[in-house]
Amino acid sequence: METAFLNGKLLPKDDIKISPDDRGFLFADGIYEVVRWYEGFFYDMNSHMIRLKRSLNELRINWNEADLFPSIANDLIKQNKLEDVPAMVYLQVTRGVARRTHFFPSPEVTPTAYACSWGFKPESHLKETGIKVMLKEDIRWSRCDIKSVSLLPNTLSFQEAKENGMKECIFVRNGLITEGSHSNIFFVMDKTLFTHPESNHVLSGITRKNILRIARESGIKIREEAVPENRIRFVQEAFITNTSAEVTPVIELGGITLGDGVPGPVTRFIRDKFDQEIKLLKG
Amino acid sequence: METAFLNGKLLPKDDIKISPDDRGFLFADGIYEVVRWYEGFFYDMNSHMIRLKRSLNELRINWNEADLFPSIANDLIKQNKLEDVPAMVYLQVTRGVARRTHFFPSPEVTPTAYACSWGFKPESHLKETGIKVMLKEDIRWSRCDIKSVSLLPNTLSFQEAKENGMKECIFVRNGLITEGSHSNIFFVMDKTLFTHPESNHVLSGITRKNILRIARESGIKIREEAVPENRIRFVQEAFITNTSAEVTPVIELGGITLGDGVPGPVTRFIRDKFDQEIKLLKG
Repeated sequence: METAFLNGKLLPKDDIKISPDDRGFLFADGIYEVVRWYEGFFYDMNSHMIRLKRSLNELRINWNEADLFPSIANDLIKQNKLEDVPAMVYLQVTRGVARRTHFFPSPEVTPTAYACSWGFKPESHLKETGIKVMLKEDIRWSRCDIKSVSLLPNTLSFQEAKENGMKECIFVRNGLITEGSHSNIFFVMDKTLFTHPESNHVLSGITRKNILRIARESGIKIREEAVPENRIRFVQEAFITNTSAEVTPVIELGGITLGDGVPGPVTRFIRDKFDQEIKLLKG
Repeated sequence: METAFLNGKLLPKDDIKISPDDRGFLFADGIYEVVRWYEGFFYDMNSHMIRLKRSLNELRINWNEADLFPSIANDLIKQNKLEDVPAMVYLQVTRGVARRTHFFPSPEVTPTAYACSWGFKPESHLKETGIKVMLKEDIRWSRCDIKSVSLLPNTLSFQEAKENGMKECIFVRNGLITEGSHSNIFFVMDKTLFTHPESNHVLSGITRKNILRIARESGIKIREEAVPENRIRFVQEAFITNTSAEVTPVIELGGITLGDGVPGPVTRFIRDKFDQEIKLLKG
């Protein structure tokens, strides 16, 4: 039986029920984090904790148990016997349960904190072959820097990509490529690594941050600058990053084949560096 | 004990629980409607049904019981003994319960349909005095025509208005006034009624539609055209509309007093016409 976490307690997941008055259900008034378990440790939990606290701050949700998340995550891995497999822990914190009003509950209510975990088989072959991705106008709100559960535009866009045989939907806003429906995107042009700068139009991905660090440490030239859609024909390589896909090469973007249509040398170098770091951490 | 509705059944509301895997909770992957009960009838249920079906279509949620909503709404009013008071019925339909993936569950799952009702005291004095409203950059997504539960931007914006002593937050996108966080807005300039045209940037409000009809029937000149923020000083009157506020005059917009700072003649005429229609329907 699967164990999950709700408001301070580990419980059988099937026993966990959310009130229909939960503001997560009624208003998407909540935030989330997903951390990756590498058969022994969570990758960069520290950065996830910083982002979690930032998201809570931005929404002014006062979840007093935020510091317990690493321990909750560990408990879930143990209880669900996931120690020895690749796994994810998902955390969602909403503003809590209150009669429906557009304004925040007054007086304040206790936030709802829910967490669960699952094992998974990484799609490692995609890191070798690369993927094709769709391009689409960014229909999301203008606070994509907040990791909120207001994800309807992301699911609609990703579903559209999937139905077109694509592995991700990459967004374009005002002519500039921002990021994917649940990933960041990097480009290689003239031996320089490009990615959209931190802003209200992209999520500050944990893998994104670590890839920038790895590239910097490796002496790769970096420009945190958005790539305009009309410059795609000058892109030699591209890859997406996120907690589950890690570094996955992109070989086709919006119908345009990139470089030779296979993962390029800079992408492979960065992907391998990331994999080596994981191997090292595994010890 | 309060009665609510879940997936075909009327139940004590306290017994109604939502799965944490509900896509409404995880992704805001759902839509809603709110209908107004006028001590005997629901106002323009037909238009709400059309919009409900459009929302479901846009999200490709196949809720087979949509046609039963008027009867569910009636049952809730009866069961909760709300026949003789002003009341609301809220309906929310999500894509259903499935393990978390950005793409739609495959195979498809049964949607979650939840409804509840509540009595309320209309803030009628505001229809006399008028309200002050805030102006703010529109941070929402670009499919505001869909009545989705992806409402985080709306709640954050409305809360900001409330904390500034304002009764609504009105959005500006690309210099044009769109609508409120949960209302449409109308303006009077040179005896002409202006409101943002139907588009992906505004919700097609049921009250909005009926006010346009009433204005047309009364021979008032109408222009479904967005008013630029920099034309506010030319606005003589304004009012917001929605299912609960009906027609509520706006006397101050973004710090600028409109006209004489009291509800103007066109606004009062339209408000009274709407109230007369309700009185007539009450019989």
